[in-house]
Amino acid sequence: MSLGTSDAFDLRPDYIISVINKLGAKIVGFQFPEGLKRKGPELAKKVEEATGAEIIISGDPCFGACDLDKTLLEQVDILFHFGHAELEDTKFSERVYFIETRSAVDIRPVVEKAVSELKGQVIGLITTVQHVHKLPEACDVLEANGKTCVIGKGDSRLAYPGQVLGCNFSTARNEVCDEYLYIGSGDFHPLGVALSTKKRVLAADPFSGEVREVDPSRILRQRSAVIAKSLDAKVFGIIISSKNGQERMELAFSLKALARKHGKAAHLILIDLVTPDQLLQFKVDAFVNTACPRLAIDEVGRFPSPMLTPQEFEIVLGEREWEKLVLDEITEEPI
Amino acid sequence: MSLGTSDAFDLRPDYIISVINKLGAKIVGFQFPEGLKRKGPELAKKVEEATGAEIIISGDPCFGACDLDKTLLEQVDILFHFGHAELEDTKFSERVYFIETRSAVDIRPVVEKAVSELKGQVIGLITTVQHVHKLPEACDVLEANGKTCVIGKGDSRLAYPGQVLGCNFSTARNEVCDEYLYIGSGDFHPLGVALSTKKRVLAADPFSGEVREVDPSRILRQRSAVIAKSLDAKVFGIIISSKNGQERMELAFSLKALARKHGKAAHLILIDLVTPDQLLQFKVDAFVNTACPRLAIDEVGRFPSPMLTPQEFEIVLGEREWEKLVLDEITEEPI
Repeated sequence: MSLGTSDAFDLRPDYIISVINKLGAKIVGFQFPEGLKRKGPELAKKVEEATGAEIIISGDPCFGACDLDKTLLEQVDILFHFGHAELEDTKFSERVYFIETRSAVDIRPVVEKAVSELKGQVIGLITTVQHVHKLPEACDVLEANGKTCVIGKGDSRLAYPGQVLGCNFSTARNEVCDEYLYIGSGDFHPLGVALSTKKRVLAADPFSGEVREVDPSRILRQRSAVIAKSLDAKVFGIIISSKNGQERMELAFSLKALARKHGKAAHLILIDLVTPDQLLQFKVDAFVNTACPRLAIDEVGRFPSPMLTPQEFEIVLGEREWEKLVLDEITEEPI
Repeated sequence: MSLGTSDAFDLRPDYIISVINKLGAKIVGFQFPEGLKRKGPELAKKVEEATGAEIIISGDPCFGACDLDKTLLEQVDILFHFGHAELEDTKFSERVYFIETRSAVDIRPVVEKAVSELKGQVIGLITTVQHVHKLPEACDVLEANGKTCVIGKGDSRLAYPGQVLGCNFSTARNEVCDEYLYIGSGDFHPLGVALSTKKRVLAADPFSGEVREVDPSRILRQRSAVIAKSLDAKVFGIIISSKNGQERMELAFSLKALARKHGKAAHLILIDLVTPDQLLQFKVDAFVNTACPRLAIDEVGRFPSPMLTPQEFEIVLGEREWEKLVLDEITEEPI
């Protein structure tokens, strides 16, 4: 395994070494998302040999910049958080360095392939931080093929124009475009944009070369079923995350008050890693999730009781119309 | 489900209500071990109705007083931690109240049954906090049968004479006794005492009524096998817990330095919940566990690489003799 620039992801060892040497940091934390954790020990060895600093690697699961290892941060002089872009740049410690690990994969072939599938004239471009540096190139391809390219600016939680998170599609709002082209892997981000904007979204995966139109109808059917199952619920468990970028305590308290107003019981449950197994301990009729918005969607049907988003809970209580069902997001604005 | 005194465990709702009312606490945390979590919502409802306080329940796994929910503590005025005795009473916040949940089970029958199995004259009595209030009664039974009863005082991590933890058998050291009688369920505590003292230990389970002599030979064989498998290891992962009562950072650094002295690579891994799945992410030849000492023993063979205790790591490096193999404990004294 090499950590050089020929790797799919550049972990920027030279930059890391220069930061440590410049600051004279003695104890340094490394935090990786699951897909990069295996690179931790080798990178730690290289950096320790070059700097004399002691590296402590976070062993806990990590799902995003929302999931900063605060305990590790307490133990170290500085922390390098890999694989994610900074979230709300004013919020985090100056002692945290985000190493974004941009992908070197060539996006041009899949964007060229997508051109013939696009139906509109004005195309909104969206992607994750791994490919965000390639958006100008994607624009070039679209414009060379007669399209107009729009890259939206999101809210303050996002680091780059065109960037989307699993919990924030704000770069795809208020943009004048006919449809969206998402560059990246996985279904969640483009599905979220389709549900949020009601526009057509094409997903182009630069790794597999696949181009396809996303279809949010299955998710909408699932969400309707979860809401329907919760209509008679009397006791709710309101999940609050203890992760830095997922904690919405104020929202949880307001949902509890809303439950009370409707004569329902609601219990606040603070939890770090939300899993179906862990929630088995709580006998409630339905859960309401204020933690990572993806949980209720990605793990639908796996929890011991139906898991609602805050917006869906409002529908259950009769405070929101079914037609106003949207995916939950964590944005600048409260729901 | 009742929370009254007829329950096997008394969660002391009246005391909790009186503390909240006296302090005027507005936001209150509840933390339960797994076996008591299901009682959380009902108790929360009762206490909220009586006090007007808002209760937040910890949803994370909880394995002992060593595993205080520090994140929840940051969110609340006071925290009630159920099912465990205070650990090192000067160390924790004044805002934490330990509700020990003593068991109402009658220990007399099983102690009477144990008498005929005891071989010695002077009997050391040990138990967990659930039964510690019954030790005087157990002494009465033993002394009525002509035995002499000794209840040892442990180190400062233990709240009561005669109490043992899964990681601390200090009440069973330096005691002049012929053998030990352990009152409680499970094998780990009496096995630890047998290994730590080299004396005969009888375990008397007041729930099942079973009395048996514990046999540490299987554990010793397993530990020898783990050590043998690690003798050729070149790269070690040193696990550090981020839990309040399990974190041994200084020990981890000293073990890393010891590895270096012997020309071995060692990486420090800080982690909250140590599971075989989570450690799959780290490709090392062997792990060294400075977190909960029970992990290496209870989960033997389940980790992706052999998991050594600190003392076993010393044996692997040739710094400790095989004959000096002991179970790891977290005590006042460093190893």
